[in-house]
Amino acid sequence: MARSAQIDVAVRFSETDLMGVAHHAAWVTWLEMGRLALIDGSGLPYTEIARTHHLSVVSVSLRIRRPLVFGDTARITTVLDKVGSRKVCFVYELHHRDSGVLVGTGATEHVCVDLEGRSSRLPDRVVAALHHEPAPSR
Amino acid sequence: MARSAQIDVAVRFSETDLMGVAHHAAWVTWLEMGRLALIDGSGLPYTEIARTHHLSVVSVSLRIRRPLVFGDTARITTVLDKVGSRKVCFVYELHHRDSGVLVGTGATEHVCVDLEGRSSRLPDRVVAALHHEPAPSR
Amino acid sequence: MARSAQIDVAVRFSETDLMGVAHHAAWVTWLEMGRLALIDGSGLPYTEIARTHHLSVVSVSLRIRRPLVFGDTARITTVLDKVGSRKVCFVYELHHRDSGVLVGTGATEHVCVDLEGRSSRLPDRVVAALHHEPAPSR
Amino acid sequence: MARSAQIDVAVRFSETDLMGVAHHAAWVTWLEMGRLALIDGSGLPYTEIARTHHLSVVSVSLRIRRPLVFGDTARITTVLDKVGSRKVCFVYELHHRDSGVLVGTGATEHVCVDLEGRSSRLPDRVVAALHHEPAPSR
Repeated sequence: MARSAQIDVAVRFSETDLMGVAHHAAWVTWLEMGRLALIDGSGLPYTEIARTHHLSVVSVSLRIRRPLVFGDTARITTVLDKVGSRKVCFVYELHHRDSGVLVGTGATEHVCVDLEGRSSRLPDRVVAALHHEPAPSR
Repeated sequence: MARSAQIDVAVRFSETDLMGVAHHAAWVTWLEMGRLALIDGSGLPYTEIARTHHLSVVSVSLRIRRPLVFGDTARITTVLDKVGSRKVCFVYELHHRDSGVLVGTGATEHVCVDLEGRSSRLPDRVVAALHHEPAPSR
Repeated sequence: MARSAQIDVAVRFSETDLMGVAHHAAWVTWLEMGRLALIDGSGLPYTEIARTHHLSVVSVSLRIRRPLVFGDTARITTVLDKVGSRKVCFVYELHHRDSGVLVGTGATEHVCVDLEGRSSRLPDRVVAALHHEPAPSR
Repeated sequence: MARSAQIDVAVRFSETDLMGVAHHAAWVTWLEMGRLALIDGSGLPYTEIARTHHLSVVSVSLRIRRPLVFGDTARITTVLDKVGSRKVCFVYELHHRDSGVLVGTGATEHVCVDLEGRSSRLPDRVVAALHHEPAPSR
C-alpha cells in the first residue's frame, strides 16, 4: 500500500494576492511541505538526505478547483506514487480542512542529484526509508 | 498565427534555495510574468482587465530540464494557446538566455472570474485584445 | 501588562537561499504571522477587521543574531507595544525553539487604513479587542 | 563620494497581497536587488564573491511612506554607507518611477561570513571593489 502523509497548512497573509486569494505559487510550496512531511515520516528526515543528495524537482502539475483565502486551512495529503532507481514521484490532494471540500490536486516528479547537482542513483537508505523497511545504518 | 511575447528574467538571490538553484515556485511566478507581458502587449494591460475581471489560474504545469542559478537569466517565451468563451490557455518555453539552451516548459489554464470570484464569460474587449483586433472603446 | 502571543514556525525549504539559511525576507513574513496570532487571540480575528480596515505596515525593523536553517523551528513572541488612535506598534523576539537561544528581534509600525487605503482612525472594536476588553457587538 | 546604484523594479502580480498593494516582504527583496546591483557595478560581481564569502544580513529596516500597486515601478537608489573590516552597510531610497515621489527608505547591515557561515574579515578584493579601486587579480 502506498505511503502517505497528511499536514494542515493555514494560508498566510503574505501568500495572498490582489485577487484576495492564495497565489498559486504558494500552493506549489505547500506541495513541497506535504512531501517533506511524508519523507520525514519515513524515519529518514530530509535534512539527513540533504547531507549528500537532493530530490530535484523536474516537473510540477497543480490543478486548483477552488481558491483558498486568508483564514482558510488546507489539508494536504501526499502519496508516494513511484520510486525508481533515480526518480521519485508524489501525488497530492488538497482539501479545505473545515468543509472537507476537495480544492485541488497535484503531482511532482523528482530526480536524485548529488550536492554538485549531478544525476545520481537514489541512495539505498532513501529507497529503504521510502519503502518503510528499516533503514540501513548510516 | 498565435500571439507570443518574450521577456528576460534574472534569477533573484531571494529565489534561490539551499540546493543553490532557483526554487521551482519562482519558476511559476516567472510564467505569470510571461503571460502578463503577453497580455500587456495586446494593448489592453492587465491592470485594465483587473478593474472588472481576473484570469484565475486553474492549472499549472511546469517541466524543469535544467536548473538555473543566481547569475542566470531566463528568456521566457509565452504563447497564447487557446481562447474560449470562459477560458484562456498559455504555453511557455524557458531558455537560458546566454547559452540559448532550453531549460524548461510550462502550460497554464485560466478561467475568467469577476471581482467576487464568480465564473464569468471573458469580456469582449479581452477577447478582442487577445486576438489582436482593435479593442472596442472601454 | 502588555498583551503577547507566541507561535512556532518551522523554516520551510522554499524559504532557504543559496547560503543555506532562511532568507531574511522570510523572517519578515514570520513577524506578520506573529502579530496576526496576537490579533486573533484578542477575540477579533484579523479576517473580521479586514472586512472594513487594514493595519498597513509603515515600518519594519529586524535584527538577525543567528541564522536559522531548514530543520529549525523559530519560536516567535509578539508583544503589543503601543496602540494609538491611528497607529499600532508591535515588537518581536525570535528564539530557536529547541535550544532556546535568542536568534533575532524585530519591530513593526502600522497605520490603520480603510479598504480604499485612506488613513483612518482605528475602529473602536479593534482598540477594545487589542486592550482585551470585551469587544462591542459587531 | 559614496558609491551608489539605481535600478527599476516593476511590482510583480505575485508580490501583491489581499490589500491590493505590494507586500512589505517584497520591498525587502527589492533592497537586496538594489545592493546586488551596486556590488555588481563595482566590477566584482556577487557571484564571484559568493565562491568564498557571503554578506549575511544582520539587520534590515524599511519605512514605507506610500504603498505601491501592481502596475507601479519602483526606482531603487542604493548607497554604500559604510565598509568596515567585517561589516558593510547600505542605505536605500525608493521612488515611484513615474511620479518621482519618494515612497520609502531603508537600511541594511551585513557581516562577512565564509561558506561555513563563520564570521570573517571582508576579503581585500571585496573592500577594494567597493571602494572602486582597481580590484586585485583574482
